[in-house]
Amino acid sequence: MRLYDTHTAPTPRRVRMFIAEKGLSIPIEQVDIMAGENLSDAMRAKNPMGKIPILELDDGTCISESTAICTYLEALYPEPSLFGQSALERGVIMQWQQRAELYLFNQVGMCFQHTSGAFKDRMTPVPDYGREAGINASKFMHLLNKHLATNTYLAGEAYSIADITAFCAVEFARVVKIRVQPEHVHLSRWLEAMRARPSALV
Amino acid sequence: MRLYDTHTAPTPRRVRMFIAEKGLSIPIEQVDIMAGENLSDAMRAKNPMGKIPILELDDGTCISESTAICTYLEALYPEPSLFGQSALERGVIMQWQQRAELYLFNQVGMCFQHTSGAFKDRMTPVPDYGREAGINASKFMHLLNKHLATNTYLAGEAYSIADITAFCAVEFARVVKIRVQPEHVHLSRWLEAMRARPSALV
Repeated sequence: MRLYDTHTAPTPRRVRMFIAEKGLSIPIEQVDIMAGENLSDAMRAKNPMGKIPILELDDGTCISESTAICTYLEALYPEPSLFGQSALERGVIMQWQQRAELYLFNQVGMCFQHTSGAFKDRMTPVPDYGREAGINASKFMHLLNKHLATNTYLAGEAYSIADITAFCAVEFARVVKIRVQPEHVHLSRWLEAMRARPSALV
Repeated sequence: MRLYDTHTAPTPRRVRMFIAEKGLSIPIEQVDIMAGENLSDAMRAKNPMGKIPILELDDGTCISESTAICTYLEALYPEPSLFGQSALERGVIMQWQQRAELYLFNQVGMCFQHTSGAFKDRMTPVPDYGREAGINASKFMHLLNKHLATNTYLAGEAYSIADITAFCAVEFARVVKIRVQPEHVHLSRWLEAMRARPSALV
């Protein structure tokens, strides 16, 4: 197994953290997305969407999309469970995983892509939309702060993949100047707990 | 169990189709999102994101986000499997579920929301972005057509949740005038097969 990674990007960080929380060791190969290495024919043969991360299996089969790579690893290495075990745990964790991805992670990403111009050679930035996406991300952080007043982690008492997704989004949000606010005491408490885990350093 | 649904909207249709493919019967309550019923205090207590669908369990616990509701139902009712069984099946199905959601379903939704003005009372439409989202959706349909030249369904030989997501997106895309093109013979073959299933009628 081998993970194609871009060390500075928030999406592959989700997978690196997941691997660390599972206690796995998977060889990593760096891909320079700013230089467009992910768009080469060789990389598009591994992932036609031209995105990183990609998990390549020993027989050459490739899996991309962060949640899909984590789904595969969870099935192979069930402990510690990061997707939940009972039906209700699985449903609630996926609910927060989806919320963290759609309303926070992807909004921060759209804010970055549409306001920074970093990828203007390969997309059409719409800065007005980027700003709206940033506002959406800030609103979700406010909601998350309220939710974390009565929940240790996003999905309740158990640390899960949803925490990884939200953490990578909040950390990357600093690049577009979206920060946890002083009044976000519960979100700050959660953020400090996340930063204290060894997986935050990978 | 009860499903809060909006019969005309593409997102809850994904869950209705999933329920039909599982052969389940779950009582349905309609919510008028155009009239903003989903934004009432009572509905926000069930889902703070103010979105439909929501699955309410008999003890009052609510699960929202389509993929999360389906994850819960898959765990309770494993047959027929729509998320896969082996680790590789699960990974590949989630890969295509994510691709269908992020690059097609959500792009069609953004195109509709940002160009139609249907929800301009509750968001700031950015029409230029809506048009870009529509272009993204069209590009993915082209990629999907190529993929379906050598795959019966999105994730290979097995019908899965990824097909439901892509089907609901392609059907709703007509509203924003994004259509399967005459040269999309493989996508058309798949679309006809999807339309012939009883789940397409729910």
